[in-house]
Amino acid sequence: MHNIDVWGIKEDALDPNNYPLHETLFALGNGYIGTRGNFEEGTSFGGHDGTFINGFYDYYDLTYGEKYNGYPHRSHAMLNVTDGKRTAIFIQGEKLDLATGTIDDYERHINFREGILIRSFKWTSSKGYTVAYRSERLLSLDNKHLMLNKLTLTPLNFDGDITLVSSLDGDVTNITKADDPRIGVEFQGDELRVVKTQITHELGELVSKTKSSELGLITLMKHRLIYDGQIQRTLEQKDKFIAHHYTLAATNNKAITLEKYVTYHTYENTQHEQMDSASKKCIEEAYNLGYHAYVVKQKAYLHSFWEHADVEIKGDDATLQGIRFNMFHLLQSVGRDGYTNIAAKGLTGEGYEGHYFWDTEIYILPFFIYTNPNIAKKLVEYRYHLLDAARKRREDMQYKKGALYPWRTINGEECSAYYPAGTAQYHINADIAYTVCKYVEATNDEAFLVEAGLEMLIETARLWLQIGHYNDQEAFHICCVTGPDEYTAVVNNNVYTNLMAAHNLRNAYEAAKQIEKKYPKEYQALVDKIGLDSQELQDFDKASKKMYVPYDHKRKLYPQDDSFFQKPLWDFERSKDKRPILMHYHPLNIYRAQVCKQADLILLEFLLGHQFDQEQKKRDYDYYEKITTHDSSLSTCIFSIMANELGYYDKGYDYFIHSARTDIDDMHHNTTAGVHTANMAGTWLSIVFGFGGMREVDGELHFNAHLPQQWDSYSFHITFKDRRIRVKVDGDGVHFVLLEGEPLKVYDKGEALVISK
Amino acid sequence: MHNIDVWGIKEDALDPNNYPLHETLFALGNGYIGTRGNFEEGTSFGGHDGTFINGFYDYYDLTYGEKYNGYPHRSHAMLNVTDGKRTAIFIQGEKLDLATGTIDDYERHINFREGILIRSFKWTSSKGYTVAYRSERLLSLDNKHLMLNKLTLTPLNFDGDITLVSSLDGDVTNITKADDPRIGVEFQGDELRVVKTQITHELGELVSKTKSSELGLITLMKHRLIYDGQIQRTLEQKDKFIAHHYTLAATNNKAITLEKYVTYHTYENTQHEQMDSASKKCIEEAYNLGYHAYVVKQKAYLHSFWEHADVEIKGDDATLQGIRFNMFHLLQSVGRDGYTNIAAKGLTGEGYEGHYFWDTEIYILPFFIYTNPNIAKKLVEYRYHLLDAARKRREDMQYKKGALYPWRTINGEECSAYYPAGTAQYHINADIAYTVCKYVEATNDEAFLVEAGLEMLIETARLWLQIGHYNDQEAFHICCVTGPDEYTAVVNNNVYTNLMAAHNLRNAYEAAKQIEKKYPKEYQALVDKIGLDSQELQDFDKASKKMYVPYDHKRKLYPQDDSFFQKPLWDFERSKDKRPILMHYHPLNIYRAQVCKQADLILLEFLLGHQFDQEQKKRDYDYYEKITTHDSSLSTCIFSIMANELGYYDKGYDYFIHSARTDIDDMHHNTTAGVHTANMAGTWLSIVFGFGGMREVDGELHFNAHLPQQWDSYSFHITFKDRRIRVKVDGDGVHFVLLEGEPLKVYDKGEALVISK
Repeated sequence: MHNIDVWGIKEDALDPNNYPLHETLFALGNGYIGTRGNFEEGTSFGGHDGTFINGFYDYYDLTYGEKYNGYPHRSHAMLNVTDGKRTAIFIQGEKLDLATGTIDDYERHINFREGILIRSFKWTSSKGYTVAYRSERLLSLDNKHLMLNKLTLTPLNFDGDITLVSSLDGDVTNITKADDPRIGVEFQGDELRVVKTQITHELGELVSKTKSSELGLITLMKHRLIYDGQIQRTLEQKDKFIAHHYTLAATNNKAITLEKYVTYHTYENTQHEQMDSASKKCIEEAYNLGYHAYVVKQKAYLHSFWEHADVEIKGDDATLQGIRFNMFHLLQSVGRDGYTNIAAKGLTGEGYEGHYFWDTEIYILPFFIYTNPNIAKKLVEYRYHLLDAARKRREDMQYKKGALYPWRTINGEECSAYYPAGTAQYHINADIAYTVCKYVEATNDEAFLVEAGLEMLIETARLWLQIGHYNDQEAFHICCVTGPDEYTAVVNNNVYTNLMAAHNLRNAYEAAKQIEKKYPKEYQALVDKIGLDSQELQDFDKASKKMYVPYDHKRKLYPQDDSFFQKPLWDFERSKDKRPILMHYHPLNIYRAQVCKQADLILLEFLLGHQFDQEQKKRDYDYYEKITTHDSSLSTCIFSIMANELGYYDKGYDYFIHSARTDIDDMHHNTTAGVHTANMAGTWLSIVFGFGGMREVDGELHFNAHLPQQWDSYSFHITFKDRRIRVKVDGDGVHFVLLEGEPLKVYDKGEALVISK
Repeated sequence: MHNIDVWGIKEDALDPNNYPLHETLFALGNGYIGTRGNFEEGTSFGGHDGTFINGFYDYYDLTYGEKYNGYPHRSHAMLNVTDGKRTAIFIQGEKLDLATGTIDDYERHINFREGILIRSFKWTSSKGYTVAYRSERLLSLDNKHLMLNKLTLTPLNFDGDITLVSSLDGDVTNITKADDPRIGVEFQGDELRVVKTQITHELGELVSKTKSSELGLITLMKHRLIYDGQIQRTLEQKDKFIAHHYTLAATNNKAITLEKYVTYHTYENTQHEQMDSASKKCIEEAYNLGYHAYVVKQKAYLHSFWEHADVEIKGDDATLQGIRFNMFHLLQSVGRDGYTNIAAKGLTGEGYEGHYFWDTEIYILPFFIYTNPNIAKKLVEYRYHLLDAARKRREDMQYKKGALYPWRTINGEECSAYYPAGTAQYHINADIAYTVCKYVEATNDEAFLVEAGLEMLIETARLWLQIGHYNDQEAFHICCVTGPDEYTAVVNNNVYTNLMAAHNLRNAYEAAKQIEKKYPKEYQALVDKIGLDSQELQDFDKASKKMYVPYDHKRKLYPQDDSFFQKPLWDFERSKDKRPILMHYHPLNIYRAQVCKQADLILLEFLLGHQFDQEQKKRDYDYYEKITTHDSSLSTCIFSIMANELGYYDKGYDYFIHSARTDIDDMHHNTTAGVHTANMAGTWLSIVFGFGGMREVDGELHFNAHLPQQWDSYSFHITFKDRRIRVKVDGDGVHFVLLEGEPLKVYDKGEALVISK
């Protein structure tokens, strides 16, 4: 255990069987470009190579056996794009391929504080020529367009020819549809089309355009070959492929170094010329600055990241490695330009088609809100930029006012083809509104509330008035919705949905009142823009107060929805070899029973915890835990948090441990298709909200920390209202340290205390 | 009004605009072959020509945006088959086409007592040559394989050449998918492939096979040309088309007659040789008997049909014409071999893909049970022959025992791609069981009950025990089902479903007890065959007695399901220009409101009327009538029946009047795609069960007749337990006449009376 690198992952022997899995684990990303951990020189091991640009997609048609009004007619998916990683190598004419020859001193690793994928080995060809190989790959966190590769080859027992073929390959396609409802794109294979290749000794350029979405991609490459021997340079140009060939007269023990600079620039079709010159400027600058400068920038970026985000656990290196791996991947995956977001699989694979879900708001955003509010803001802004699309979606769904956010999307159009576990999950509106509130509370970013947040709160709130109704004028009911738990669909008065909707309505009302008073001019502009009248605000207020919540008074339990307790318990014995159950049972059979895919009511009692007393939470937890399959990777972190809150410390620890290393240990056997970003964030939630017991209530932080007996201590960092604090929990209790900013009042187990330097 | 032909339909002027509609109205069928009313000589008017064979289908793949376990992976649809109607005509080299030239004395008609489509006109070519045309088309009700055409041409102002080109055309395809969930087949156009053409002067043969379903079709043609002038005979043979060409030296005023004999024989691929010789034998016999013999047989068949089925209305010829048209089409559409059934559009069009639905059991079978029990038996036997497929479907849906009938099908496989209005309509199991009971009650066909019916009752009943459950051991609940009303889907305790399931369970239990006692050997064989144990029967009995039925005690109304009254009323004002609403609103928006597509609870209170008192029915009727759109053609007939029962005579009349001429007047603007067989039967139900007030309770007939003030009198025929009676209602009251069989006790307004000769 003590040999585990808590600041990185390392592979110290070639492992062809796990090659596809390790493509994911060694994937790099900078929130814009992502690329799987494939070998630069190529290999015959197979796998699913892939390079992705966040938010770069094409459309495909959705087909239905029976189609109804309001069904989306097309979906879109993130494209696999031009491969810029490849540099093929020939040693005395023989291709360097780790599937052949003899390998010594093999190593592949990433250090989370450096952000560089480093590979090194010695390879001896079938004819006995040995070379030392080292490559460094870096996706710049400082300049999102930039992918760098530094390759060093040293002959160890010969003088002779070495050829390097560094390429841009535009002949790429996505993986085609499998028979799993969770994966699958109906692409034809011609979605990304190379429209231009051009190559000189100075620069290679490959331009592609999408078939339907009118997006373009310019990829450039440029090289610095550092070698003072004889070099023969030739160019290769095909329809979809360009390469620089370097044939060198190599000398024993004399290193050959190739720096490869690659840029990716995407654009809408009309912007080609402008982007063409921007990309050329970008690659020249990078080339002039040189590879090493980006190594320094990368470290500096990550230094700051870890200063704000780091978690430490003493006494459990494996878990610490898992959680840092998770945080590192969250950073690699997150779009930070306000127009992209964080996909379910990040930028590491094609699973879930590169779509963004509520995962962002409920699982991932808290991590960024409390460690990197600048990135958090960009994620919330993304939803603001989607507002027009959400208004269009609301119209498509025949509602008159407001906005309906899509259940899954990249560009704002609804991509879910199965409405019971898609469009019916209206709660996404409330989830987004909830996070707007949480972001503003944590940052005091009132400007955002005025410029964007209030509009989002009102537009989302409007929808509830149209899908809900008053029953006998007494209580506000919301029928035919699906809550977070997708194993119960299209029900009435899902408690999660109703109370989150009430939160949305109340906050829209209160924020409007607040902004009206403080920024009357801006408020009036918004009123005019969206046609708001004061009666609507009263209606928000009333509906939030009159929101109906079903309750079983006999058992003193909240049912997940009106009819949940009326259904029989699921037969877990019968399904024990059939997991996840959605792959084995017709939806009707699942919906007909009390069985949960994931936390639903339990999640609510975390998010709006102050609205429930502890005894209630305990009863509900005890009940729902027994009927939850955790078939969703969003489940265990919430159960861990609530177990800790309720004093079920063993469970709190067990649920956490089972999710901390989900991807690094491929526990769901599907990490090959990409990492699980929501679960990754969930492990951070488990530390901070679970063990740390942190809650934000009315703009103040409360802590109720617990130290698992398996650990010596743990600590984490929180950024809140311009302060940065470190919270450490050890055998002596909890220790708060103010690292930046003014003194901060927090509550520790209910007692107020002020943290100061 | 008095000029209406109450025994037929007639067109006395060419009407190109309504040509596609009239293809449907003038369609012929004999329960096996059906063919649209297209012109024999061809026309350039367009339209959707089609010839269909009941139960002759091919498969196509069903695609889903997201697919789950238990979803059908393919569907199948009735094919448009070889066109055997066509005889092209050339007058002095010019093609006879009613879109050109001059037309006089045009007429097209069908007499319902003769069953022959007769067309006649005079046509003058552009060059001034005039011919008299007359054709008779007949699909033999006596020999289902036979289509006959007798064509007579007489030159009226010239001597010269007339050419007849009589063909079999195998180059046929179905209509491709439209953007209407109610129509649409994902066929590629190559489903039916011609595998053989052969032609001699004696016989033409065209053989086709389906792409996927391994079915074959042999079509033969043979001619008798009656003309003593000069005839030149030539043959035409192409890949998908054969024709006999006759060029005649015609003489003014001298008739030319061509009798065309066409046979259709379908087979499974392995039976080709056997069917080849059977078809040749069939066409030789028909040819030898000659056309006129089939005219005589046709009249005899229809004479008997009307003797058993006729309805008469004095004082309303239009309605009488409508209802006779409907009955005539039911006869034309109904499969009577035990392996085919009656499609939603009969054999008149491609709407609903030639599928069979619960329409057969609940709407159409009563017509045949009480007018032609032999045909009724064949329809019930069809479901028995589907039992293995229904067991397979139950397995696919992860249930352990029993059978689950498909919502829509031809061959027994589930074809519904939208489970909320498909698979979730489990009530089809109870509907089939209900009709087994009704058939046995009306016929005393105990042999059928022993050989098939009991097995059906038990296998259907078994399913309820698996999808229902006891809530606190007290009441049997059935969750996540859809009742007949498709505007409310996947609900708990749909009253229709629960009470029909109770009926199914109770009758399975009682029939088993009865057969065990009376036919112990046969019973034991069944017990062994299906692994029945006596506890199961006890479970049937218990569940039927403990069946839960939601009830609103405050309003004294039955809710359609548990949560129906909790939903808001539909905004009819908003949707007034958007009908049917399923074409304009997302399903969630429809399901979220109190709005009905069709009778659901009201239908139940008709089918199981003795379980509800009159005051209850009245309250429920008053409530549900207001929220029903009648967007389904299955709705108004039920409202008409119940209105009459409850004394709402004006409504009873109005609903009936609006459905009696649905197709003949194209009231839903979609008769072009085929007639509405369930509605056609519904008009008969309205007469007999509505105005006549007939109910069968415990094996006895009850009447409670009412004479609409708009009529002088009406009468209908009923066959019941080997008796045939005529019931006439006029201003003096109701008059029963025994036409065949022993005296029969019936109840007239509750008073017992015996009908005898």
